[in-house]
Parts: sequence; C-alpha cells; structure tokens
Amino acid sequence: MSEISGQPLSGKPAARVLVAGASGFTGALAAQIVWRHPRLELVAVTSRSEAGTRLDQLYPRYRVPLELTELDLDRIEEVDAAIVAYPHGAAAPTVAELRGLGALVVDLSADFRLGDLPTYERWYGEHGAPELLEGAVYGLTELHRDQLRDAELVATPGCYPTASLLALAPLAERGLVAETFISAAQGTSGYGRSSDDTVHFTSMTENAFPYKTEGHRHRPEIEQELAALGSPAPVTFVPHLLPLDQGEIATCFAVLSESLSKEEAQALYRERYENEPFIRVLDGPPDLRSVRDTNECHLYVTVEEHGRVIAFAAIDNIWKGASGQGVQNLNLMLGLDETEGLG
Amino acid sequence: MSEISGQPLSGKPAARVLVAGASGFTGALAAQIVWRHPRLELVAVTSRSEAGTRLDQLYPRYRVPLELTELDLDRIEEVDAAIVAYPHGAAAPTVAELRGLGALVVDLSADFRLGDLPTYERWYGEHGAPELLEGAVYGLTELHRDQLRDAELVATPGCYPTASLLALAPLAERGLVAETFISAAQGTSGYGRSSDDTVHFTSMTENAFPYKTEGHRHRPEIEQELAALGSPAPVTFVPHLLPLDQGEIATCFAVLSESLSKEEAQALYRERYENEPFIRVLDGPPDLRSVRDTNECHLYVTVEEHGRVIAFAAIDNIWKGASGQGVQNLNLMLGLDETEGLG
Amino acid sequence: MSEISGQPLSGKPAARVLVAGASGFTGALAAQIVWRHPRLELVAVTSRSEAGTRLDQLYPRYRVPLELTELDLDRIEEVDAAIVAYPHGAAAPTVAELRGLGALVVDLSADFRLGDLPTYERWYGEHGAPELLEGAVYGLTELHRDQLRDAELVATPGCYPTASLLALAPLAERGLVAETFISAAQGTSGYGRSSDDTVHFTSMTENAFPYKTEGHRHRPEIEQELAALGSPAPVTFVPHLLPLDQGEIATCFAVLSESLSKEEAQALYRERYENEPFIRVLDGPPDLRSVRDTNECHLYVTVEEHGRVIAFAAIDNIWKGASGQGVQNLNLMLGLDETEGLG
Amino acid sequence: MSEISGQPLSGKPAARVLVAGASGFTGALAAQIVWRHPRLELVAVTSRSEAGTRLDQLYPRYRVPLELTELDLDRIEEVDAAIVAYPHGAAAPTVAELRGLGALVVDLSADFRLGDLPTYERWYGEHGAPELLEGAVYGLTELHRDQLRDAELVATPGCYPTASLLALAPLAERGLVAETFISAAQGTSGYGRSSDDTVHFTSMTENAFPYKTEGHRHRPEIEQELAALGSPAPVTFVPHLLPLDQGEIATCFAVLSESLSKEEAQALYRERYENEPFIRVLDGPPDLRSVRDTNECHLYVTVEEHGRVIAFAAIDNIWKGASGQGVQNLNLMLGLDETEGLG
Repeated sequence: MSEISGQPLSGKPAARVLVAGASGFTGALAAQIVWRHPRLELVAVTSRSEAGTRLDQLYPRYRVPLELTELDLDRIEEVDAAIVAYPHGAAAPTVAELRGLGALVVDLSADFRLGDLPTYERWYGEHGAPELLEGAVYGLTELHRDQLRDAELVATPGCYPTASLLALAPLAERGLVAETFISAAQGTSGYGRSSDDTVHFTSMTENAFPYKTEGHRHRPEIEQELAALGSPAPVTFVPHLLPLDQGEIATCFAVLSESLSKEEAQALYRERYENEPFIRVLDGPPDLRSVRDTNECHLYVTVEEHGRVIAFAAIDNIWKGASGQGVQNLNLMLGLDETEGLG
Repeated sequence: MSEISGQPLSGKPAARVLVAGASGFTGALAAQIVWRHPRLELVAVTSRSEAGTRLDQLYPRYRVPLELTELDLDRIEEVDAAIVAYPHGAAAPTVAELRGLGALVVDLSADFRLGDLPTYERWYGEHGAPELLEGAVYGLTELHRDQLRDAELVATPGCYPTASLLALAPLAERGLVAETFISAAQGTSGYGRSSDDTVHFTSMTENAFPYKTEGHRHRPEIEQELAALGSPAPVTFVPHLLPLDQGEIATCFAVLSESLSKEEAQALYRERYENEPFIRVLDGPPDLRSVRDTNECHLYVTVEEHGRVIAFAAIDNIWKGASGQGVQNLNLMLGLDETEGLG
Repeated sequence: MSEISGQPLSGKPAARVLVAGASGFTGALAAQIVWRHPRLELVAVTSRSEAGTRLDQLYPRYRVPLELTELDLDRIEEVDAAIVAYPHGAAAPTVAELRGLGALVVDLSADFRLGDLPTYERWYGEHGAPELLEGAVYGLTELHRDQLRDAELVATPGCYPTASLLALAPLAERGLVAETFISAAQGTSGYGRSSDDTVHFTSMTENAFPYKTEGHRHRPEIEQELAALGSPAPVTFVPHLLPLDQGEIATCFAVLSESLSKEEAQALYRERYENEPFIRVLDGPPDLRSVRDTNECHLYVTVEEHGRVIAFAAIDNIWKGASGQGVQNLNLMLGLDETEGLG
Repeated sequence: MSEISGQPLSGKPAARVLVAGASGFTGALAAQIVWRHPRLELVAVTSRSEAGTRLDQLYPRYRVPLELTELDLDRIEEVDAAIVAYPHGAAAPTVAELRGLGALVVDLSADFRLGDLPTYERWYGEHGAPELLEGAVYGLTELHRDQLRDAELVATPGCYPTASLLALAPLAERGLVAETFISAAQGTSGYGRSSDDTVHFTSMTENAFPYKTEGHRHRPEIEQELAALGSPAPVTFVPHLLPLDQGEIATCFAVLSESLSKEEAQALYRERYENEPFIRVLDGPPDLRSVRDTNECHLYVTVEEHGRVIAFAAIDNIWKGASGQGVQNLNLMLGLDETEGLG
C-alpha cells in the first residue's frame, strides 16, 4: 500500500469530477466519496491554503492519494462536474466560471439556496452571481427529486435545514404546520476546520452550548422551504454545539392547524418515506451513532398530550447534511442510481 | 494523607447530618459537600448495595473517608438532618421514619415534589407516605425561599425542572407565559450509576439522542410550578442525553400573552435575579463548562423576530440540579447562610 | 429499507458461516463483516443472553437484520465455518463440538493461543479441550500465513499481542530483541460489553489509567511468539484504558543484542512488510483515527540516542485486534483472497 | 454576582503577585489559584495577545474578574513576586527584568530548568539570560524543598519530568536505577492554547498518538535530575497525546542495579513520601480522574516477574505539572505553608 493505487472504478466513468475546496471537512469527505464511487472519476482536488499537500496527508483516514492543487482553469475543460465546497459568499464566482465552462455544479455553500436575493443579501452580503439564482435547484433530494434530474446547478442545503425539513415535510406538505420551534445540535465538524479556541478539545470536552442565538442563517432557508411545501409557518430556530465529531439531531416542535393522533402522524411519516432509500422512519427516538458515516436520515414522530407534534431527525452533518447529499444529487443529475457510491 | 483526616469543621457544627443512599452519583456528591461544609458534621453515609465499602474507594475524587453502612435506625437519634438520595418511590418510607424521629429531611427523589396525589400515582405508582405531601416544600430555592426557612421536609426538584423553571420564572411570575416548548439535555451522570449498555462509554461517545419522548415525569412538575407562579401554561418537554459527564442545558421557547422586546425581557431577568447568589444572567448564551462543579445557574434570554422568547439555563445537573441545591435548602432550614459550603 | 434485505452476496458463497457469541462487541462486528462479505453467507448469529433480539436492534449501526438464537446443534451440520466469540475458558467446549462436526473454526478467545498447557492453566484455569491445542494455529496472519492456509482451528491473537508482535517482529525474526518493555493502551470496546462502573461514561470521560499491573494474560502470549520468531526475550507489559471507543496503540521499547541505526531499522521494517496488504510502515508516529474501522496496522520504528529502539503499532482493537483478523484468517483457510470483505 | 467582587483575602497579603502570560492555559490557572489564595494578592494579569480582555471572559470557569494588560514596567515596583507563564525561550528576558526589580520569580517555562547551558542551547536555542542559570532552583518541590525556601528564581519543571521523577525518585535516590524507559501521556491542555488542527475536537476525539518521537525536550531534564539524585541512568522517553483535557500519566519501567521485591519497593515508596502533603502512594494503579483539578500526585509501584520495576505517576498536568506546583514553590519562597491556597 505504499504505492498510490488507482481509483477503484468499475468500467468507464459516468463523469470526470473536480472537488474544489477539498481541504475543509466537507470538501475532503466529498473527495473521498467521489474517489470510492464506482462510476465517478476524481480528476482533481483543489485548495488555496493547502496546495501542494497530498489529501491523504491532511486526512489520512480518507485515503485519497491525490495532491491538492490551486484551482487551474485550464484543467476545467476536462471536467464534467464539480462539487464546490467553498465558504458562503466565496463560492458564487467559481460556480459561475464552472457553469460557464459547461460543468454541472453541486454547490455545498449557501450561495444558491435562497431564491430571494434581498434575503440572501441580508444574511450573507453581496451576491457574486445573482444571475444564476433562478436556475439553481434546492438540493434536498427527497423534496425536489424531479427537478434535480434536470438540474445543472444544485444548491445543497445546510445540515440544519436538511434535518429540520425532513422532520417536518410530511406535515408541511399537507399544510398542517402552523408554527414550529426547532432546537438542533451538531458536532464540531460542522464548526469547520478553521479552528479557533471554541473547538479546541480542551474547550469542547464536557461542554455543550447554544450559539447564534440572535438569528441563524439557516432559519430563512427553512421558512422558504416550509412555505414552498405548503406551510408558510414562522420558524423559531436555535442551534447548539455538542462534544462529538459528526452528527446532528433536530428536535422540532410543531403546532398543527388540525389535530392528528400519534398513530395518524406516524402512519403519515411511514407512508411519505416508504420508498426513500436513505430515510428510515423509526419506532422510537433516533440516535447519532446509528447514522454516523452514513447518508441516512433517521426520523421519529410523536404527538404529546397537549396535541403538539414532536418530530426528530438524526443525520451525519457532513454526509446527509453536506457531501453525501451532494453526491446523491450528482448521481441524479448524471442519470445514475441515486444511492451509487453512498452504500 | 494516608491517615483518615477528621472533617474540616470550623467550630461547633450547626447540625449532625446523615446522607442516605450515598453510593449513587447524587448521594455521593451530597456526602462530599456535607463533609467539606464548615458548619455541618457528616455522621453517617449509608448504602444497601455498597455497605462495607469506604466512600473514597468508590469515589476517590470525593475524598470522603467514611465507610458506607446499612441504614441503622439506632443511630438516627443522633442525627439532626438527613439528605435522602434514594430512587423515586423508595424514598417515602425512609423519609417518613426520619421525620418521625424528628430529623429535618431534604429528599432528592421525586416522592414529595408533586402536591397532587393522583398526579404522583399516575407517574410513579403508589405513594409510600402520602400524609407528608401537604407539609413538604418544593425546594427550588430561588422560588420558595421564605417557606424553605421553616420547612421540615423539602422535596428538591429534579434537574430538568430546576433549569427550566429558573429560565421561565421571570416571565411566568408576571403571567406572561402562554405556551412553552422545552428541549433539554443532560450528561450521563443524570442517567444514574446503575449502568446498562446505554451509558457504556462505547455506546455514548460520539452519540446523543432524545429519550422518554412519550412523556417525561418532570413535565407535570414543571406545569405545577408554572401554574403556581401565575402562568398555567401547557408544557411540551423533551430530554436528551449528551456525551459528557455533568451538565444540563434547557432551551425553552415561550409564546407570550403580551409582547416584550428583547431589551425588556433582558431587563426583567436582570432585575428578578440581581440579588441571587447562585444565578448569573449573562449577555450571551451560557455553556456547560462554566457551571461544571458549581451550584450556579447561568441564564440568557432573547426575543426572536417572530416575538417568541428563547430562554436558556445551564446548570450542573448533580449540583444545582440535585445535591448542591439540596444543601442550599438545608442551609436555609438550619438558619445558615444559604451559600455556606457551596463556594 | 424497512424490509429485511437479503445478504449482499456475489455469486455462490464460499462458505456458510456461523457466528457464536454475536451479542458481544467482537462477535457483533464479526457478524457484520461476514454479512457484508461478498463470498461468505452468514447463516446464524447466536447468543445466550440476547436470544430473541435482532442483532440490528442491539447494534443498529451494524445493520445485520438477523435474530440472535441460542446455539442449536441441529443447525450445525449446515455450517462450513464458525467464528466463536466466547469469553476465555468458555470457548473450548463449543469449539470442540464444532470441530467434531467438521466445521472450520476461528476462535477469538484465548483458549487455543498458548501452546503450553501449564501456562494456559496458570492464567486461565482448567482447559476445556486440551486435545485440540496441538493442532491449533496462532492466527497472527502476517507471521503464520502458510500454516493458516491449511488450518482447521485458528486461535486469533488478542489485540495487545497483535499490535506488539507486529511492532517487534522484524527485529525478533533476526534474533535482535534482547529485552522489551511494552506500554499499550486501548479503548473501552476492549473492556467488553458486560459493563461495570469502570466503563460508565461518567467514569471514563476525562480519565485514563493502567490496569492489570500485576501481570496481564497477554504477556505469555507475546513471549511465546517472540521466542518462536527467534528472540526469546523477557517481556514487561502494561495495558492502559483510554477514553475512546475503538483503537489500540502499543509503544514498544526494545534493547537490541546488536546495534542498529535508525535508517537500518526503518529499512528493515519497510522491507519486511512491503507486500503486506494490511500493514503500513509510516514515516512518523501512527495515530488511532487513521486505523479506526479498518483492518490495518500502522507501524513506525525509530532508534533513540542511547541506541534503544522504539516501535509503535496502531490498530483498531476489534478489527485487526479481533474480528477483522479473524475473517482475514478465515479467508486464507477457505482459499479466498485474504483481503476479501475487509476493504 | 454581577459586580466584580474583591479578592477573597484573609488579612494582610504575604505578597503582591503578578501573573505574566495569563492568557494561556497554565497562566490562567496560575492567576486563578493566586486569586483564590488567602494570603496572596493578585495585582495584575498580563498578556500580549489578549490585552484588553477580562480574564473571566476568556476563561469563565476561573472567575477572575481582572482585565488582561500589556506587561507594564512601571507597575513592577509594586510587585513582590511574579509567576511567568511565557513560552520556552521567551521567558528569560522578562524573568531577568523582574529579578532586576527585586521580585521573586516562579518561571513556568523551560528557560531555567537545565543547569547546563550547552544542553539548553541544543534543545531550545540561544538563552536570553544565562547569568541567572546558576542561581535558579529546580522547582520539583518534593526533591528540592530546602533550597526552594531560599530561592529567588525557581524553574518549575515540566509536567513530564514532574510525574516521571516523582515516580522514580525513591529508587534513584538510592542509586538503584540502572536504566529507565518512560511512556507518558497527557491531555490536550498540555498542547497549549495556540491551537492548530491537531487539537481540534474533530481531530482528537476517538484519537490518541505518540508525538515528538525523535527526542522530547523533557528527556535531558529527567536525566539531569536522576543523576543529581544518584542514578545517572540513560532515559528513553516517549510522550503521547490523549483525548481528554487535564491529566497526565507516566508509566516508568526501571531496570535496577540490585533486585528489590515488590514488598520492598512498595515499602520504600511509602516511607519516602509518608509526610508529603500532595503525594499519595496507592495500593493499586492510579487514575486521572482522581487527581483532576488537584495538586496531588498519585503513585503506585510494582515489581514484575522478571524483576523489572514499573512505577506509575498520575498528576493534573496544569496543576502539579505546572501552575499548582508553581504556587506550591511560591508558598515556600514566602515562608507560607506549602499547601496554602491549593486545597
């Protein structure tokens, strides 16, 4: 194993794929998933800050034996698709260039998630490619599968909207959600690699806390999608940081416009998701270990004595909450089986 | 330090104290606090399961050099006060005996927390000493201080009600809480020492999950107290378990009957708690490390865009959420300074 | 995914495999590896304590949808091979029965590791099937590959001997090891599922400690094999428990009978292991995250100023230290590619 | 508690103390210990990088309500003693200035630990105040207590030498240590606050690894002191990093020049340390939780079958391994009870 082994492809690749921004947590995972994907060829991994380093030096556990390079426009012609894992705000110009060269793009940033430009500008500042907003498809696969098959630019949702919306969608689609309160929590991989003291092991062990309590940028994303599903309800949302690496739990309280029994709610969830390959509706509350390193979302719904619904979703924040869902969408865009490479 | 050193008392003790059930997490901590308390003499520590073991063998970090014994009624006469750390349901008969012998009792179980006997029986089964219910005082110190000074039997609240009620009390006292949704989370010390696989390190590391999602016994306790404070609001409550030892965070969403600005809410909290020795109202969200191994409660309140209040409380679940508050109450019952031994 | 899906086999299985003792950590992992193995059919998973429970209820992350049953001798005829994950001492009788029925057996216990019966009896007590000792092959694959191809009963080594011997073998094979001192440490999965307070999350977090300091049963196993390799050196060995789930590091100090430079030592290790699929000789010290959930062993060797060798090995204690190596051996016994199902 | 409370002094302070470099982990802890010390007045806390921030904003759990300032020479006259918590190499010039102004200095860096200038220069580079080397006293309290009473400049030992030397001293003092091999491990607070990805929670959880395997700067410190005690033995030393915050365990193997039985060794240790207030000789192996947040060192010694000694020491790396021992030494320098403020 001292030699760089070739990528384990089975037959001719369906697409040659670039991962831009592969030195961060989600970019590195995207590179690994593409590397092990039987139908995708990983042609380049780029990073401004870590150019010259091999990705398996930076993330030994991912075993991707490619050197990180600066993004080089001359190579772009050879690329059929790109996964862009840049910070919010920084992605749009690169996405525009890649689209200009004809590449399919899965963007993991927030830059194309909000359809409404003023809302984007309020939370993130000026937009680097507003002309692409209209054509972008919101990449929560289970809610937008048909549009994703024809998409050329996909805005992969944040991890909090992914978990929250999967937890509420069966109710929201029937127009039942009148109000919702979401308390969500994720591990430190969601805080990003550019570490400050907050995520020093010494600070995080034996710790947990809410953050961005004065308004998190994921809230408008959740409200946008709930409204699109049929329930334009106000969302109160609080994120927390937990002393673990990968994983996210969303605990969603919903006040309904019509009452449902627990049995009705549970039947509704089972029916809604029965054919979804990555969604499991459980008989009891989900836990994070069961979804770690998978693209699955585990759900549980119950109705308490006062008639309020409590819906839980557990995901791995960098898999179904970012890179795994990104590849799930790319599979659809390329006409592949949605689960390919995500087993 | 190889010799058993005497208890570090300053002067004549204000009371001779027994800790019953000292082999569990909260009982052991209660024993340690009493042991180091300058005015209390720890005369015995009892345990059925661990009788014959020295407490500092079982919990080396607590350094209490006393042998655990079976509870012996003949010694009870020499005891002025007892802290009872038995499981729910098992405490009542022992509490009754101790009261019969004239000892002041701080009970850490749920047995005397619910004033309404049918409610108790619904959640816990038959009550072992219903005749004592009426005289018991609910030991959330900051809400019932005056009654606690004269109390002979105090029911120390659970950790979830302590955090949740301190987070909501300033609003509830003004009758403002119309509805509330509470998502709370605690560390594994709250799960108890009688370990099953759930709290094996192998199961808990990198994990977190909601539990008792179909109704937690602490909910009626919270509803009882909110009503007593002036806000008979329905409470929706979900607890979670976190991969840490000591600590609890309550994230409380409240819909108000009258709107408050963020500034008004924050001023209300500061004013309400300004003279409280163990309550700190912060300028931003609390974290668990800052309250670990202390009897403090750190609070933060904000009002979000849709006018809903989010109030956070962080405590150490076995200190302010159990044994620390127990001693805080015992100090009051004995006419001592409330903070003594809890510094 | 709500249906139990069939096992993902490619073509006719090479063997029908039973995993006995599948409710423990190593047995459950063995069951998972066999379940996902493209050439092995998992025909039964047994457990005395958890019979009637589905394995994916007990270990959701392993996703093996089979019910645990009591070991049933009538089914044994249909089995070609068995992996036995019983406690030390309890395995021998079952192994003997399985061998009597003609099944190939990979034993994960210590029962057939020590070739010398008196040594076994000193550390473990009476032996349940001493007549099988002579034919058993010690299953440290990289040291005994040729014998393993013809073996019918394999004693998979403990995790500590696996790591320590892989770290010392290149020197031991040349008769260079005069004395060795080994400080090794593993995570809580190595402590076993039958939890006591020692591995309660509350006890282990922020903790680490040596244990079995008066003699660990793995020491004679290491001495036996070092001698067999050509270096009958005395071994001083201490294990430690760490606050993590899976992983083990062995730090081995060796005094040599002839001096070697650092370059010579490193060249020796690279050469020795260059064709080994699961061994990686690194350019710097190994870490546990890089081997987690893999069957790999990462090694590093250096020589310090006084001429002593320090050799490090990192493995996942339940993979290469138990079940992964068990399947690696079973692959050899069945004439399959050694790496099959362990990718 | 919203007001800044004054320092809890009992009577006139024995010294006015400055802590320089109080934004790092050890400096902040030193500040806290001095703040709560009944006989020391904390007059200033300094930091270049965090000047202007209050220490209790940076470290809420320490509750020291002072603002960090740049080190201001004009204030130095008012200072009787200083604890300097600067990086290695950076401390010497400031120590020299403080000494020039007459202040007693406890240095927590390595700058005055090695009596031999060339050895210092080999490991750390040029020395900033070599003229002070000769007068500096090595601050391992239990080994140099008499000199410490008269010292004006104390070089507090590193955490690894503290643990290793306390573990070996009873043997070394009798000239018995012929060779020693030390495997030690500490938590992430020992890695320092200037975090890089190595100590990101995401990197450290479920991880552990050796580091500085080609020679750690603490080795010559250990060899210097063993020789001074009477055993000029070669030391082989390897440090490891563990997924915990505070704590360090040293596992020391020693080959003796004369054989000792286990009982003799254990008696020797008990006798040597029987009057030491912070040393506990245990009957079994120590653990880290029992010394966390204390200035204690827990020791255990045993002799294995081949006659080699294994001696274990557990300390809190930032207490007895740095700031706690620093204050222990300062107490001695000031003629106070050695344990004052460290209870």
